[in-house]
Amino acid sequence: MALPERVRIVEVGPRDGLQNEKAVVPAATKVELVDRLSAAGLPAVEAGAFVSPKWVPQMADTAEVLAAIARRPGVSYPVLVPNEKGLDAAIASGVAEVAVFGAASESFSRKNINCSIDESIERFRPVAARALERGMKVRGYVSCVLGCPYEGDVPAAKVAEVAERLLQLGCYEVSLGDTIGVGTPMRARAMIETVAARVPITRLAAHYHDTYGQALANILASLEAGIAVVDSSVAGLGGCPYAKGATGNVATEDVLYMLHGMGVETGVDLDAVAATGTWISRSLGRENLSKVGRALEARTA
Amino acid sequence: MALPERVRIVEVGPRDGLQNEKAVVPAATKVELVDRLSAAGLPAVEAGAFVSPKWVPQMADTAEVLAAIARRPGVSYPVLVPNEKGLDAAIASGVAEVAVFGAASESFSRKNINCSIDESIERFRPVAARALERGMKVRGYVSCVLGCPYEGDVPAAKVAEVAERLLQLGCYEVSLGDTIGVGTPMRARAMIETVAARVPITRLAAHYHDTYGQALANILASLEAGIAVVDSSVAGLGGCPYAKGATGNVATEDVLYMLHGMGVETGVDLDAVAATGTWISRSLGRENLSKVGRALEARTA
Repeated sequence: MALPERVRIVEVGPRDGLQNEKAVVPAATKVELVDRLSAAGLPAVEAGAFVSPKWVPQMADTAEVLAAIARRPGVSYPVLVPNEKGLDAAIASGVAEVAVFGAASESFSRKNINCSIDESIERFRPVAARALERGMKVRGYVSCVLGCPYEGDVPAAKVAEVAERLLQLGCYEVSLGDTIGVGTPMRARAMIETVAARVPITRLAAHYHDTYGQALANILASLEAGIAVVDSSVAGLGGCPYAKGATGNVATEDVLYMLHGMGVETGVDLDAVAATGTWISRSLGRENLSKVGRALEARTA
Repeated sequence: MALPERVRIVEVGPRDGLQNEKAVVPAATKVELVDRLSAAGLPAVEAGAFVSPKWVPQMADTAEVLAAIARRPGVSYPVLVPNEKGLDAAIASGVAEVAVFGAASESFSRKNINCSIDESIERFRPVAARALERGMKVRGYVSCVLGCPYEGDVPAAKVAEVAERLLQLGCYEVSLGDTIGVGTPMRARAMIETVAARVPITRLAAHYHDTYGQALANILASLEAGIAVVDSSVAGLGGCPYAKGATGNVATEDVLYMLHGMGVETGVDLDAVAATGTWISRSLGRENLSKVGRALEARTA
């Protein structure tokens, strides 16, 4: 079992995690969340999105959040931007890293961002070019890499093609997302191997949702395939709009527990993240979906 | 990633799962649970325990349950027996398979079954001998294989020694239990490799609790190490008495989803198990702890 010595964790709780929360979370809570996560040693904390407040009202205060967080040296605070208007807002907020969000499924692309995959790449092209000109970093997401709520199976070759196109636009890294959490370890590994045959594996991240409880096993298989960057969400924040009530992102605490237990370094303080998970779950009045978080709470109760 | 073509699932919900439930579950519910699980194609359904009702009141009606279940040809219904008195009761109930429960940790053995590991082996010796004389099968459990609530780390060599002694008593199989769910994949794999250096791996089963969310990843690592028998519990029934409120056994549905998704055969009908998990969770008034069960419920809701 060959594993990387070190894994970089990209914390997506404040954006991917919160975006589906129904009740509006106060900006001050978001700021505290971001600051606690960066203080815990997380090297990247996705801090918000400049998207239409009509579609994602929870992210409407991203500029306010960005103005208030305590930016730590060495920590990235990527912000999702779907288009040039979003990029303009990110530039105005002094953002150093943006993320663009594509899909490996045509149907999902059309339903989620209202354009074909080809059109999304063309939409991202000037976003990436302008961001790079200003010295900003650009991260890419590919969704539906192990299945689509509309199309079912998604060919790994399609994932590889979209990942390669995002890298060609200038993304420094592409995060491969099992958006609906349907993947299992052999398929996750095979998908990564297919993508890694076309692009350097050092440019890939694994982003798994835990809808069917498979996320940690899929991450393990992905690490064995050579992946060394993992997206996760404190307290498992995030839902799955395609299966109401189902679990969302894999919990950062559970990923850290597995990695540290295997001797893989992350530089992140698990106890600090778990305390943050307990706090944000209470703040939102939702169940803590991290099993590690709950076990640690139970142990100290 | 070399995996077995077929995995045998040992369903432990009706015994290991229910034994910590506070409210007494009616015998009729237990009977329906066992019957639904065997009808779903599970090849082994742990049906109860002949233990002191003072210590485990939930199992006090095991004889009544055994008298009422519809025994399917080819299905095993192992029953836990801690001593010869338990064996006598099992014989009186026409049980074809019993299980004995040892530990790899001295402290856990003393606190859980009130004797040293050596004493437990001597206590099991006549149980196994008499059971085998009657043509019954004997299964062994080793608890605390990846950690003990009192001692912390447990040496894999100790696990191997106890497993070997149980096999020498005549157990056809020994189930290695991460009783408190603290293990991570590399340690699980290393533990199994250490045990498999002393006993045939075909005689070993993996029994993992999901307290820290690691169970599926640990099962994956165990399959890669050659394990082909997995214990699990419908709806994740079971708690952890050492961490109140924490998750117990890995859910059968989640294990089946992973295995079937990897093309590993089990002969079990996942939908039937999931429906049973939904039903028993509602019957007990507890949350369905299977993520697959919850995702399927959400999809059909």
